[in-house]
Amino acid sequence: MSTILALETSDVRFPTSTSLDGSDAMNLDPDYSAAYVRIVTDAEDGLEGHGFVFTIGRGNDVQVAAIQALAHHVVGRNAEELLAHMGATSREFLWDSQLRWLGPEKGVMHMAIGAVVNALWDLKAKRAGLPVWQLLGRMSPAEIVELVDFRYLEDVLTPEQALDILEAAVPGRAEREAQLLQTGYPGYTTTPGWLGYSDEKLVRLAKEAVADGFGMIKLKVGGNLQDDIRRLRLAREAVGPDILIGTDANQRWGVTEAIEWMSHLAEFDVTWIEEPTSPDDVLAHAAIARGVAPIRVATGEHMANRVMFKQFLQADALQVLQIDASRVAGINENIAILLLAARFGVPVCPHAGGVGLCEAVQHLSMFDFVAVSGTTDGRVIEFVDHLHEHFVTPVVMESGRYQTPTAPGNGMEMLPASRAQYAYVPAPEFASDAALA
Amino acid sequence: MSTILALETSDVRFPTSTSLDGSDAMNLDPDYSAAYVRIVTDAEDGLEGHGFVFTIGRGNDVQVAAIQALAHHVVGRNAEELLAHMGATSREFLWDSQLRWLGPEKGVMHMAIGAVVNALWDLKAKRAGLPVWQLLGRMSPAEIVELVDFRYLEDVLTPEQALDILEAAVPGRAEREAQLLQTGYPGYTTTPGWLGYSDEKLVRLAKEAVADGFGMIKLKVGGNLQDDIRRLRLAREAVGPDILIGTDANQRWGVTEAIEWMSHLAEFDVTWIEEPTSPDDVLAHAAIARGVAPIRVATGEHMANRVMFKQFLQADALQVLQIDASRVAGINENIAILLLAARFGVPVCPHAGGVGLCEAVQHLSMFDFVAVSGTTDGRVIEFVDHLHEHFVTPVVMESGRYQTPTAPGNGMEMLPASRAQYAYVPAPEFASDAALA
Repeated sequence: MSTILALETSDVRFPTSTSLDGSDAMNLDPDYSAAYVRIVTDAEDGLEGHGFVFTIGRGNDVQVAAIQALAHHVVGRNAEELLAHMGATSREFLWDSQLRWLGPEKGVMHMAIGAVVNALWDLKAKRAGLPVWQLLGRMSPAEIVELVDFRYLEDVLTPEQALDILEAAVPGRAEREAQLLQTGYPGYTTTPGWLGYSDEKLVRLAKEAVADGFGMIKLKVGGNLQDDIRRLRLAREAVGPDILIGTDANQRWGVTEAIEWMSHLAEFDVTWIEEPTSPDDVLAHAAIARGVAPIRVATGEHMANRVMFKQFLQADALQVLQIDASRVAGINENIAILLLAARFGVPVCPHAGGVGLCEAVQHLSMFDFVAVSGTTDGRVIEFVDHLHEHFVTPVVMESGRYQTPTAPGNGMEMLPASRAQYAYVPAPEFASDAALA
Repeated sequence: MSTILALETSDVRFPTSTSLDGSDAMNLDPDYSAAYVRIVTDAEDGLEGHGFVFTIGRGNDVQVAAIQALAHHVVGRNAEELLAHMGATSREFLWDSQLRWLGPEKGVMHMAIGAVVNALWDLKAKRAGLPVWQLLGRMSPAEIVELVDFRYLEDVLTPEQALDILEAAVPGRAEREAQLLQTGYPGYTTTPGWLGYSDEKLVRLAKEAVADGFGMIKLKVGGNLQDDIRRLRLAREAVGPDILIGTDANQRWGVTEAIEWMSHLAEFDVTWIEEPTSPDDVLAHAAIARGVAPIRVATGEHMANRVMFKQFLQADALQVLQIDASRVAGINENIAILLLAARFGVPVCPHAGGVGLCEAVQHLSMFDFVAVSGTTDGRVIEFVDHLHEHFVTPVVMESGRYQTPTAPGNGMEMLPASRAQYAYVPAPEFASDAALA
């Protein structure tokens, strides 16, 4: 029996805006940041639960305050009880009606719940001595169903239907686990494609990506059409005809503009257009999907919750579903989304990058392969090669594939030294603060 | 020329959970609260801008932190410049890409923008010596169009179409202003209908509502079906056949349950069912609307932004549109929503109650009457009779009608004594805190 002693938060920011890593048509100067949470118990094992919300700078303090607002649900509670019933635990956070008013189920408060839920999963997995993907992948279908909040989903996915999906994937679980451990999970890279990079850097990084074994790269688009045409042509020439090229407009357009713009890029054999418009706009994405086919629409990294994903699937408004490890209410809600995707037969290709998102989200794709969809066909996890050095168990890429993690936990634990070094204090080294000063 | 000296925030909470005023099927113990903002300049007139976000208790501190995160956009700036271009000013807040990441355009950060935008409008209106409804209602159509962020709206509403709507309402503006000042704007009351009230109290308050001149009352539903049937029968008997009765499920149901439940209440001649399910679920509301007709679906108080309203209108998922004064990004975004409603010919019946929402939202309906829809047909503003005494210019109801305010400002200024008395410090007088302690 152990008690949770503390929910400790910290505001960690990396001054990435100085290098334009991560620049796109909407986010010109991101300072990649984490609203970080650490859960400490009085157990003799000394194990802790770690999690965070990824943000891009200003407002990370607001996100930290939101995580703190959940402390009363956790501190002083029996750890075994919370961890034994992660479905009930996550619903307790979600159905705190006073906090729910601040969303409901969206934005700062919802992401805060995600961080705490993920930190509890980290603790649970460490106690089990397993990485989260494996802990989840060894739970029974009934236990997995119990993790999900089906409210607002049942017109499309009932607990019984979810159970059927999971039962169907039970045969072969052990083989897929073994396969994962041997060969990893396919990735793709966004490293060449940031909008702030020169043509020369784009071409060099695109060639390096192919040499590194990636089967797909992605380019940011939506700043200037003539630039995009030139950059896509250079990229296609650099990688050859057999490598997939995705594009990402970061919500830049309306319906007409998206369809028109993509008509000029189609000749470069684009596999998907990501975030063509507002992540809230189901009907616009559906119209765009009809207008840009056979290019597929990919979205999800900014989608607020499972209810939005449900509608995008119902309306055929996306053909590639992009979960994010820190946008929704944690692993539990992401399991709901994986089940929805499986119900519609849509591939899940997670968003990653930022700070620690690669480390975190790989667990969800690997769990999906073992216990939900049972396949990696048409599925890739985004990879961006920065800031991994700050994590206790950084991702390992080999030949363009995520090597399957075996360390216990959810992958989100940042090194104490990094947390200390990049603890935020307003200062002119942050270009965005200086510009506003 | 004046400079903004300070953006001062405060955490104000009223311990309403002790009386169950405001209780519904989802919100059992609200402590009506305001994340309050006051903008101070160095102008000799001493005028201030006031605004707030309404919350229901826990997390109000998070909302306050989010408002503070906007201070750098305001403090030290030239007041005349910000106020002269309120469209550009509000877009500056919305398109701060680092802060936008925290939504985007939803939840805590978006509501914080709303509070600051509304506080600036309060200052602008006080400087003009006009109530906000009149200030807005006297702007030219072109000036009003300039206030709106059309991004993500243009598949349905272009600036040119908005201009047409506003130009069509120019004739008769002066007459409608005069009419408003003489007769006010129709209201309806939710006071009898809270779920925590006894049958006796429900009947007594329903009869009082009719005696007070209201043409419509609203009852919370969704807790227990047999209770709802009994309460609706009592209410219908109490008010007679000529008074409208609305119902409000506060997001309690899924699609099937909503249609089934309402089939049992239809015999009591219900005019609308409000928030039958998740406020994010366009497709579910559309299905419910088809299933419960001729009862209409009303929603909007929790709708995150103009993009969601647009889709609900496109999909005929609501037949009554309920704006809220503090959920979206302030008066500017609410003008976008009023224009969308006018484009679809859907009546706007604002959500109010809470703390100061009646005081604030009446300005939007009155502006709509003067300069957008040009009518009050089928339109009513919600009224709840509590906490008005804390405001500098409390609403005045006569014969069930909002009496048109003539005091300069947006109506949101709370008395300094109330702000001081209810300044929040965690304490056991808040039942919800005590329960968790």
